[in-house]
Amino acid sequence: VTRSDGVIVSGGLGPTSDDKTKDAICKFVEVNMVEHKEILDDIKQRFSKRGVDMPEPNKEQAYQPEGAILFRNPVGTAYGFEVYKDEKPIIALPGVPAEMKAIMVESVIPSLKEKGFGLSDLHILDAKVVGLAESAVYDAVGPLREWAEKRESICLAYYPHFVDVTVRVKVRGEEEFAEKMFKEAKSILEDILGEKLYGYGEDGLEIVVGKLLRQNGMTISTAESCTGGLVSNRIVSVPGASDYFLGGVVAYSNEAKSNLLGVSEKTLSTFGAVSPETAEEMALGVRKKFASNIAVSTTGIAGPTGGTAEKPVGLVYVGWSYDNELGSKKLMLGEMTRDRVRLYTSQMALDVARRILSGMSLE
Amino acid sequence: VTRSDGVIVSGGLGPTSDDKTKDAICKFVEVNMVEHKEILDDIKQRFSKRGVDMPEPNKEQAYQPEGAILFRNPVGTAYGFEVYKDEKPIIALPGVPAEMKAIMVESVIPSLKEKGFGLSDLHILDAKVVGLAESAVYDAVGPLREWAEKRESICLAYYPHFVDVTVRVKVRGEEEFAEKMFKEAKSILEDILGEKLYGYGEDGLEIVVGKLLRQNGMTISTAESCTGGLVSNRIVSVPGASDYFLGGVVAYSNEAKSNLLGVSEKTLSTFGAVSPETAEEMALGVRKKFASNIAVSTTGIAGPTGGTAEKPVGLVYVGWSYDNELGSKKLMLGEMTRDRVRLYTSQMALDVARRILSGMSLE
Repeated sequence: VTRSDGVIVSGGLGPTSDDKTKDAICKFVEVNMVEHKEILDDIKQRFSKRGVDMPEPNKEQAYQPEGAILFRNPVGTAYGFEVYKDEKPIIALPGVPAEMKAIMVESVIPSLKEKGFGLSDLHILDAKVVGLAESAVYDAVGPLREWAEKRESICLAYYPHFVDVTVRVKVRGEEEFAEKMFKEAKSILEDILGEKLYGYGEDGLEIVVGKLLRQNGMTISTAESCTGGLVSNRIVSVPGASDYFLGGVVAYSNEAKSNLLGVSEKTLSTFGAVSPETAEEMALGVRKKFASNIAVSTTGIAGPTGGTAEKPVGLVYVGWSYDNELGSKKLMLGEMTRDRVRLYTSQMALDVARRILSGMSLE
Repeated sequence: VTRSDGVIVSGGLGPTSDDKTKDAICKFVEVNMVEHKEILDDIKQRFSKRGVDMPEPNKEQAYQPEGAILFRNPVGTAYGFEVYKDEKPIIALPGVPAEMKAIMVESVIPSLKEKGFGLSDLHILDAKVVGLAESAVYDAVGPLREWAEKRESICLAYYPHFVDVTVRVKVRGEEEFAEKMFKEAKSILEDILGEKLYGYGEDGLEIVVGKLLRQNGMTISTAESCTGGLVSNRIVSVPGASDYFLGGVVAYSNEAKSNLLGVSEKTLSTFGAVSPETAEEMALGVRKKFASNIAVSTTGIAGPTGGTAEKPVGLVYVGWSYDNELGSKKLMLGEMTRDRVRLYTSQMALDVARRILSGMSLE
């Protein structure tokens, strides 16, 4: 507090005895705790909605530092609060990331902005890139770097999220100036990255694909082996997905691939479950089953076991079917862990859908 | 460094110009960077395995502080390293969590232990609880707290992970003493928590269910609506799941529920897609389809839209079918976000499987 204009702490607001943040802050700012009836009622209601009685320890969460500004927690029972020491705000938030984020966005940031705490002259543009490693993105955006280096108020950052890379353009200054800079940056990025630039902002690929499906009035279905439901799960994570997602089949065994998806036994015995032929028949089969406009499929060896010399761990095929088109692409993900093979494959399957819906090449 | 016996930093080891950790540390410990041919070869090989050329910027990652101990990154291109200042170790690790964790576990912890850095007299027992809120767990384990309070070398902590709660018992002392204390703690916990205690250690419910299926020589299949593949995805996340997981159907639309799972149109029109009847027919249908020993199903309204007065957002049914048994349970998750409704439902579906496989009640 002596070194900064305010402090935000997180964690330790739970109902158990190892949650000590409120006590510590009360001591520090020299106030007592008081019980808030309305918080108690709110917490009780939260439990009763689930048909459960409030456990005793939650009572403790109705106690808050006297005089504190309270921030309701839209997704949990731990309220956040704000107190003052030497006229500087001390803000306490729960440690559970989803709860902290919810209060931060709903209450804290607006309140800090009002007080004149300022990120207000910092503007951010996030460009999202799929299908290139961070270093390859960095390499590619050289011209953007040159552009940024000439301008003092602009700086770049790169965030690898494993399945994609975010290039962040940070501009300091008036909003109008930032808008102009973002327009320039977008034009440079689109020139450089072309189809690998899948969007701006926070939207993941599942959201972008959902928007494209909605715009095109089209439906999708999925046939998954190695990803085991991850592709459909990501599609369904978007609110309103029922408008365009009809369903999927997770065909883990060979029997499931032939019985549920109509992959021919000859294909399975001649080419194997992990083959372009099987991936394509899976996509075609599931598309017929659900009568969707588009279908994507995955089959591969996620590891750590199950690989052979000919078909090593990390060998994956992503298949697709739409209109009269049927195809597949090969991925070699041998250096990745099981979870990463599956996650990366799900991203490539979504990217196939994005490319189909955007009329891009599938190579 | 002046205040502690060593420093671990993470982040900023990537190939892009905003990655400055190596430079900063080199300056601090007053050494230069040197190129390591073997790192360069290793990184090149990583890319070539994927059939991709190494991008130029990755070359930079072969440079490391002179005299540093290097830690190979098993899941990425950023090596970790250790240098010394005033005979105290400074360890730098990549910021990507999976990469940091891998190097930490493979290299750093063993090396710190060798140097006598010591958590060696701290022993940890994690007990995992499903189906109770953190506060209810806290409330229930009162007797364990009394037991711990009488012993100076024991302390408890509670970690809510939303889908389950971990009760951590920390014991300081000799291994033999810790084993004895853990035995006592386990006996108290098992008395108190009964069937809600699903395991000890790091294993999530999907791993516990996988082990039970393997032990019983049984197979499982899934029929999912609101969870959209999350249940099957969690089952498949466990290596070797192909031994017991046959597959699943994600039946998002009513047509899919009747065409693929054989839910009768009468059931759908009389009781609706979100009903105990539909959940049960889904479980029965998918079990027949895959000829599995057990099947679980989910159907519900994940929100934020789609609710009605009679069937509000958060209403979910989990169904099951095994032997001659068919059943379902109702969940009311109205206060949760869409993602949480889906995650919580997947946990309850896995818990149903655990209870079936353990011969426990399903109420």
